[in-house]
Amino acid sequence: MRYHKIPDETIRRLPIYLRGLLFLSEAGQQSVSSRDLADFLGANPPQIRKDFSYFGDFGTRGVGYKVDTLARQIRKILKLDVVHKAALVGVGNLGSVVLAYQGFKVYGFDIAAAFDIDSKKIGRKISNITIENVSNLRTLKKRKIDIGIITVPRDAAQETAEALVNAGAKGILNFSPCYITVPKKVKVITIDIAMDLARLPYYMPSS
Amino acid sequence: MRYHKIPDETIRRLPIYLRGLLFLSEAGQQSVSSRDLADFLGANPPQIRKDFSYFGDFGTRGVGYKVDTLARQIRKILKLDVVHKAALVGVGNLGSVVLAYQGFKVYGFDIAAAFDIDSKKIGRKISNITIENVSNLRTLKKRKIDIGIITVPRDAAQETAEALVNAGAKGILNFSPCYITVPKKVKVITIDIAMDLARLPYYMPSS
Repeated sequence: MRYHKIPDETIRRLPIYLRGLLFLSEAGQQSVSSRDLADFLGANPPQIRKDFSYFGDFGTRGVGYKVDTLARQIRKILKLDVVHKAALVGVGNLGSVVLAYQGFKVYGFDIAAAFDIDSKKIGRKISNITIENVSNLRTLKKRKIDIGIITVPRDAAQETAEALVNAGAKGILNFSPCYITVPKKVKVITIDIAMDLARLPYYMPSS
Repeated sequence: MRYHKIPDETIRRLPIYLRGLLFLSEAGQQSVSSRDLADFLGANPPQIRKDFSYFGDFGTRGVGYKVDTLARQIRKILKLDVVHKAALVGVGNLGSVVLAYQGFKVYGFDIAAAFDIDSKKIGRKISNITIENVSNLRTLKKRKIDIGIITVPRDAAQETAEALVNAGAKGILNFSPCYITVPKKVKVITIDIAMDLARLPYYMPSS
């Protein structure tokens, strides 16, 4: 099956649906209506139905969606049905928090390596991963690591991105609050927690 | 001027545009076309034009948008034209990173207080903020703090949310990977960094 032209916004919401479905599955629920799923996630039912319609409709009228089937389909669409190995560069405060974060496993991610330039950190273990010298980045391809996570200071972000791309990274999750430039074939997603906070006041009642 | 029915997805993108515009402004640029702004942000021009059309068109054909005017308008729409004070609850590793994060100021946020239950932490200073006992949460209203940031362990997230709401919080930024329930008038935005990573493989070229 091929999926054409799924809007970015739908792709952005699929992990949210997936996480909700996995939660329901753990709780023993076998099927769910788009209305109940929407209520649970704080989303709206027509949007959920529209999002799912892009890749075929898995729902049955009156019964709803099969939780496990739908979760499996979303994993497949997002290419999360295989394990992805990631390398983190920059083991400071933020990097350590990201390394320790347990939430990646839900989606099949394995942070398999961590790098730094600080000789005092190299060789130490954080969250069961031994910190390596950044010069080891060249081993990524051999180790089948194709995702880079950037948690270096802002000034070092661009050169880190280039080093990751040269080492074979095809996707980058960037935590530095800056714009980085990479070849078009490489996908960069930048996380800026301030942006999420920035849309909060719009929804808050005026006092 | 009143703004009706702006889609959530547009509201989600406005902080991205705003950050880009502030960056361009700092670089001394006075006007920008939707195409150049799109190129710079890795977005697409029709979407930018459509997003701006919801609240009136600020662009002039052939000239583009005035950077500072547009930035000011977006701030106003997002209600970021006034300073918002926030309180963070849970000063562990993640909480400390969030407290130290400099990116909030861009949008006019001031993390004005931090709380924990650990008596060893209470009274200590992190990023110039003295950690207080959570029992002090009741002072939020008096201190004009109406945003809560939750960085406690998952199991404590729901009760922390309730304590924040009781103390007068109207908006919550939740970093705990769980679903929290609050009264409808309170807006919750949950940040899960794994979700951003989860949409990366979809865009990566197959090997």
